[in-house]
Amino acid sequence: MKGELKIYNSLTRQKEVFVPQNPPHVGMYVCGPTVYSDAHLGNCRTFMFFDVVYRYLKHLGYKVRYVRNITDVGHLEDELAGEGEDKIAKKARLEQLEPMEIVQNYTNGFRHVMRQMNTIPPSIEPTATGHILEQIELVQKIIDAGYGYESNGSIYFDVLKYAEKYPYGELSGKVLEDLQNNSRELSGQGEKRNPVDFSIWKKASPEHIMRWNSPWGEGFPGWHLECTVMSTKYLGETFDIHGGGMDLQFPHHECEIAQSVAGIGCVPVKYWIHTNMLTVEGKKMSKSLGNSFLPHELFAGSHPSLEQGYSPMTVRFFFLQAHYRSTVDFSNEALKAAEKGYKRLMNAQSLLSKLNYTNVGTVDVELDNQINEACENCYKHIDDDFNTAMTLADLFELSNKINAFSNKQLPLASISEATFNRLQTTFHAFVTDVLGLKDEASDNSNDGLMDGVMDLLLNIRKEARANKDWATSDKIRDELKEIGLLVKDSKEGSSWSVL
Amino acid sequence: MKGELKIYNSLTRQKEVFVPQNPPHVGMYVCGPTVYSDAHLGNCRTFMFFDVVYRYLKHLGYKVRYVRNITDVGHLEDELAGEGEDKIAKKARLEQLEPMEIVQNYTNGFRHVMRQMNTIPPSIEPTATGHILEQIELVQKIIDAGYGYESNGSIYFDVLKYAEKYPYGELSGKVLEDLQNNSRELSGQGEKRNPVDFSIWKKASPEHIMRWNSPWGEGFPGWHLECTVMSTKYLGETFDIHGGGMDLQFPHHECEIAQSVAGIGCVPVKYWIHTNMLTVEGKKMSKSLGNSFLPHELFAGSHPSLEQGYSPMTVRFFFLQAHYRSTVDFSNEALKAAEKGYKRLMNAQSLLSKLNYTNVGTVDVELDNQINEACENCYKHIDDDFNTAMTLADLFELSNKINAFSNKQLPLASISEATFNRLQTTFHAFVTDVLGLKDEASDNSNDGLMDGVMDLLLNIRKEARANKDWATSDKIRDELKEIGLLVKDSKEGSSWSVL
Repeated sequence: MKGELKIYNSLTRQKEVFVPQNPPHVGMYVCGPTVYSDAHLGNCRTFMFFDVVYRYLKHLGYKVRYVRNITDVGHLEDELAGEGEDKIAKKARLEQLEPMEIVQNYTNGFRHVMRQMNTIPPSIEPTATGHILEQIELVQKIIDAGYGYESNGSIYFDVLKYAEKYPYGELSGKVLEDLQNNSRELSGQGEKRNPVDFSIWKKASPEHIMRWNSPWGEGFPGWHLECTVMSTKYLGETFDIHGGGMDLQFPHHECEIAQSVAGIGCVPVKYWIHTNMLTVEGKKMSKSLGNSFLPHELFAGSHPSLEQGYSPMTVRFFFLQAHYRSTVDFSNEALKAAEKGYKRLMNAQSLLSKLNYTNVGTVDVELDNQINEACENCYKHIDDDFNTAMTLADLFELSNKINAFSNKQLPLASISEATFNRLQTTFHAFVTDVLGLKDEASDNSNDGLMDGVMDLLLNIRKEARANKDWATSDKIRDELKEIGLLVKDSKEGSSWSVL
Repeated sequence: MKGELKIYNSLTRQKEVFVPQNPPHVGMYVCGPTVYSDAHLGNCRTFMFFDVVYRYLKHLGYKVRYVRNITDVGHLEDELAGEGEDKIAKKARLEQLEPMEIVQNYTNGFRHVMRQMNTIPPSIEPTATGHILEQIELVQKIIDAGYGYESNGSIYFDVLKYAEKYPYGELSGKVLEDLQNNSRELSGQGEKRNPVDFSIWKKASPEHIMRWNSPWGEGFPGWHLECTVMSTKYLGETFDIHGGGMDLQFPHHECEIAQSVAGIGCVPVKYWIHTNMLTVEGKKMSKSLGNSFLPHELFAGSHPSLEQGYSPMTVRFFFLQAHYRSTVDFSNEALKAAEKGYKRLMNAQSLLSKLNYTNVGTVDVELDNQINEACENCYKHIDDDFNTAMTLADLFELSNKINAFSNKQLPLASISEATFNRLQTTFHAFVTDVLGLKDEASDNSNDGLMDGVMDLLLNIRKEARANKDWATSDKIRDELKEIGLLVKDSKEGSSWSVL
């Protein structure tokens, strides 16, 4: 174990030293995607971040059981009120498919994007439909404990009764009175004793496709229930870390706490971690603003608001440049800068692997100290609530030194062998193991070649333009377009992207 | 719809014309892997074959719902007797992991191999643990119908009682009397009324980790039950095609039939398809003979009995060269021959895409007929119980013609334009869409583009040479060499390859 890892706990609203319940084991649960549409970039950021948490905990020597679920039922259109149509069943109805075909299709797509982003698969990836029996059992326990009531075939959680004994709203900072005043009156609300109550089991209407038998008739579990069931089934009644996007704090995570306390008799989670949202040029990503693009569109540059494609590793680097509790703002400028930064880092890593240390000179103590300090800072900063932005800055400081060693501005022998070894170990550990950045250029042989060939081709075109040989210049642009490659000319020169 | 597809139905032991119940819909269920160890090559062959079935049915215009399950519980060590320890729970105990971690790990590995083999993911990939509730319900139905009995907390299927009314052994050709005589006496057999009975619900012993509540106490479903539940849930009580390896005919598929007939009241499947086994140099693949290698070992050549690595597409081609009802025998000679054959086919496909038809000559009727006949034969042979071996032979006949057109031995204009179009369409459809062979040499997205870009670049160089602009010509050659690409000049023009 290196330093002392501190995590900002959303529950206590302060940074706390991370002390697992049962070291060296760590249990971590992250709310996964609802698979009724393509994975969106906010999800990607969240899962990429928890991938770094997973990687860093493993790097520290912990044995981590990382559970990330797939929500394949029970996510209603109007979350807050717990009403509306099941999102997956609705998509199935619209596309005339079996709901599980929708689920399979988008789950495959989600896993594909996760692979592209180089995230490590979780230890267990359980599904909501895979745990119906356990969910029915928990509903029964909540009823038995007096916090659940049946109404017209559905079971609701009695929030007011719960709040008499336990704090409700502690995680999200919501005040029950405000919630009651702000509750909208919606169809089916009449079934609830109080508008703030939430469904833990919903009666299936006759046209509802996804349905299971239960002691209360045919229905399906409420969305919040699955996470309580799956997290505690695989990680124990109280576990170390629970994560998700900030938008899940309320009602989802608040309800999870209530369900665990009421039905299992335990506060479920020690450290709650929430990631912040994405914006595009300062605005919320939304379809109506036309600034919403999907991962594959971002990678290919196939959206009007994108000037080019940004590779999965560029996007990963881009996310890492912000602290997870800050918003991340997409812009072409920021993404281009990230692309450069990512390539600089990969270049430094490649140069580092080629350096051969020979112990011949006098050690420059100041330089030696600088490198050791930057190595220490990598740990110090990631230990400070996973500050990947600062860790990247440390890695860039090390990159500058590596470049200087490589082009002989600095003699490599002016640092001690121990320091050189530490530089190699730390740099590699952070770039590859912890931050999960891989070299795309050497990833598949031909991509690197493609870049080289295109550079050559664009150079020939540049010369043709310099010679006012517009025929050749246009021919190259036009034929590339025919192949499916777009050449863009700008003041800085020409670039290309896949159409 | 092209011709008339005939399928050898294991149940009737004859080839039958394929008539789906509810065209254009086709339901197909294939028994998937038990995920307690790495996918083995026998599985790969089976799933690769059903991938061809899936692809061909889609090519014919059917809307196929293809369900392939993941067995993540209930597969006991001694299948025949239905006794022993659950394979996944045992592995978990040995590796000190949560069973679902084992499941996740080997499921990920299985999916990876399936991607390498270029199989299309099934429409739905349901898990046994995801359908416990439905399995409990089916057990209850079987009990209610009088064909299931409880014994010491487990539920058994009463085979003798079933056989009084329905045929048992029809699929596998087993005779009940022989089965009774051959039954071994094993621990726990005492619970059964008769040794031929099989468990549909097993009581969990105290140390058993994977367990669920049921009306009969804590336990887990019998292995055969999951497939009955999942196939009928997603495909209906009677569906078109059920497939699997030949080793599953008995007891697994025989028991599925009995469960459906007894519990649901329907014969479940119209066409049963079973794939044959693998051998290595004429012997059964087995660990004790030291001739057992895993897919990744075969691809990498990292096993003593392999002289080299054979790429996933070579292996796919190799499997396709045998009819699915024949055994496939691995040997280095046969695999090397497959590698050559695969490359020949890919080469022909590449040449075909470069042929430009111009309608200038007189049609050579005999040649024209030969090509049309070979195109027809592709359909004729795959329609004949998926005879991929014969279809490959047809594609090779077409390849010979393509080669002759390409090197001008035969003038392309000696066939009609309609025939040329048919050649292109049929060749591409069978190689790529139906047999699922892809060009590994140009595997990455950029590789298709790479060909185009290199064509353009070599054209520019050709022009430069024509203009005696040796500086540009040499520059292109030299810079490509620096990138790692070799340009070769010959009488026919220039070509390139990776250094």
